Amino acid sequence: MDLVRAAVTLTECYPFGAYSHDGGDRPRLCLRVGDALLDLAEAATRDWFALLDLLDQPTLDRLLEAGPAAWRVVAEQVPAWVADPVELIPIDEVALELPFTVADYVDFYASEHHATNVGRILRPDQEPLKPNWRHQPIGYHGRAGTVVVSGTPVRRPHGNVGSEDGVAFRPTEKLDVEVEVGFVVGVPSTLGDSVPVEAFADHVFGVVLLNDWSARDIQAWETVPLGPFLGKSFQTSISPWVVPLSALEAARTPVPSAGTRLSPYLVENEPRGLDIDLELRINGELVSSPPFRTMHWSPAQMLAHLTVNGASLRTGDLYASGTVSGPTDDQVGSLLERWRGERFLNDGDEVVISATAPAADGSRLDLGEVRGRVLPAIRS
Amino acid sequence: MDLVRAAVTLTECYPFGAYSHDGGDRPRLCLRVGDALLDLAEAATRDWFALLDLLDQPTLDRLLEAGPAAWRVVAEQVPAWVADPVELIPIDEVALELPFTVADYVDFYASEHHATNVGRILRPDQEPLKPNWRHQPIGYHGRAGTVVVSGTPVRRPHGNVGSEDGVAFRPTEKLDVEVEVGFVVGVPSTLGDSVPVEAFADHVFGVVLLNDWSARDIQAWETVPLGPFLGKSFQTSISPWVVPLSALEAARTPVPSAGTRLSPYLVENEPRGLDIDLELRINGELVSSPPFRTMHWSPAQMLAHLTVNGASLRTGDLYASGTVSGPTDDQVGSLLERWRGERFLNDGDEVVISATAPAADGSRLDLGEVRGRVLPAIRS
Repeated sequence: MDLVRAAVTLTECYPFGAYSHDGGDRPRLCLRVGDALLDLAEAATRDWFALLDLLDQPTLDRLLEAGPAAWRVVAEQVPAWVADPVELIPIDEVALELPFTVADYVDFYASEHHATNVGRILRPDQEPLKPNWRHQPIGYHGRAGTVVVSGTPVRRPHGNVGSEDGVAFRPTEKLDVEVEVGFVVGVPSTLGDSVPVEAFADHVFGVVLLNDWSARDIQAWETVPLGPFLGKSFQTSISPWVVPLSALEAARTPVPSAGTRLSPYLVENEPRGLDIDLELRINGELVSSPPFRTMHWSPAQMLAHLTVNGASLRTGDLYASGTVSGPTDDQVGSLLERWRGERFLNDGDEVVISATAPAADGSRLDLGEVRGRVLPAIRS
Repeated sequence: MDLVRAAVTLTECYPFGAYSHDGGDRPRLCLRVGDALLDLAEAATRDWFALLDLLDQPTLDRLLEAGPAAWRVVAEQVPAWVADPVELIPIDEVALELPFTVADYVDFYASEHHATNVGRILRPDQEPLKPNWRHQPIGYHGRAGTVVVSGTPVRRPHGNVGSEDGVAFRPTEKLDVEVEVGFVVGVPSTLGDSVPVEAFADHVFGVVLLNDWSARDIQAWETVPLGPFLGKSFQTSISPWVVPLSALEAARTPVPSAGTRLSPYLVENEPRGLDIDLELRINGELVSSPPFRTMHWSPAQMLAHLTVNGASLRTGDLYASGTVSGPTDDQVGSLLERWRGERFLNDGDEVVISATAPAADGSRLDLGEVRGRVLPAIRS
């Protein structure tokens, strides 16, 4: 996989982010251009004053809210700004910031291989896939307030863990990762309305990479009947870069659910899956290469499901795909699956999730990375 | 119960809220004084300019964030402001607004009677209480973006519902209520830190009444293995009034979990349960009278649990108790329990949850109400 990757050209797709200098100054918006940043407000000041209202901001929130017409105007200026930049700031001279204010955070469970693998491991006496799984994207709400930007270390959490010997309160012994792709909502919707699959690109601005850190022992003990809670809520890390959907046109691919019988609101008439190749590395070593094209549900189906009960969207809503796992052992997106529950993260381990996707010219887009190191538990 | 209530004096506790005039003007903060409002910025303008920064606001967010010392200063002025008001505005002349920006919303499951009743109804072949239930407050994250203020009607949601005949997409036929009490976090905490039970009042400002609208058929179909999602996320209603904890000192009472063996972070050395009497009315008729004092876990234990994994708090975090159900049939907080799943809400039904609590002088405090009417499903 590394060899394959080295053989193709990585193309820039100029994703959006926010940066600050180390002094805790107000963050500023930027585009990533290779190993450098282009300051968006500075670029717009030169020739697009009308966009300053959206771009001279500490987060992408205003741009997200502005919607597809504004996104298109900005996207159309990007090539000129990049070709003749006012200034390029080396990334390693700045701190990358959380690029938008997370409103609600939802996590789906859209990989058939992941759901099947986890079902087999955690509930060996039952059918691995529940009866509902093929009828709708299964998901749950996570904690928006603990979504952090790549680079933020993760503290090994404490929690109650039950066994036949009783319940112990201790640091997790099963700290895991989940390789995911997240979708960033720009345009809100009204309470009571639902967002059809066709309106996906009217609401969603772009894509981030996401690590849904998980404490498997805490999660296993707490999870019945209300689902994951403290086993997940201690931290979720996202890439500092939001790749606009418009950059991923060449990556569109049909999803497996397209061939199944579905409730009308989940039926898609064009491909909205994404052919993104993910990679999980721990301490520099390639652990797996999860293929996002194998996900059973598309991000448009997830959004349609999320809102079919009339739940409204807000600018900054983030929903994630759930762990991306392909059919083979070296394509799974969690250590629970990769190492069969026999080995998890150690203190000091550094986890990096990166991704590429096909570009229109046959090369590949670099979607950036989400990175985090494990800190030891606080002594209790 | 109605007779008992009529026999006691209801005392004002001057809860905090926000109001606007009908034209969609910027909301203003207020205290409730009987059937009228006292404008907080107007009161502070007369003699407490230093508080204007916190009180001349469209939401309670700034006051919440300011913490206990500021809350005390404001509370100390309230009797004088109420005794000699600049102006009292009749409540029926204004619109009451959502009084704070909801950050994350968590829903617990802290009533033993409710958890047992629901377990028996939904999983008749299994032990009603799961092994984890007596060891920690079980909970999950809900949708913060669909928390609305009392008076907002609820639209009957659509969703997938499974049965032996397959899966049908249709409006819910089992629209239910859940009578709950919610807790409003003011002071944030740092990622990685936990908030001990003793620090409860350093973080939590006050209490709201909460209706966790539930679509039981949608919920039953989706809920395994990740918990409730669309069966809950369409709407959660809260009272317009936040009653400060300081007004509830006389209501403090020990919780049943105090006598059980618990992980150290859940052990309490003083009573932090609350003796709140709730009432559920549908179309004016008393349906049940749930007693909050029977909850197994205190709100301080819930907060300690929520943060024991290092999850941070933000100003505006809202966590709810879960359905409040006492031991008898007329004390249960959901229609699933009250009417054994044989009857749910009809279109047009108006649901009102109200509550009182003991005051220091032996009378009772009126905690206000949360109200909502059921609108028919949108034709699909």
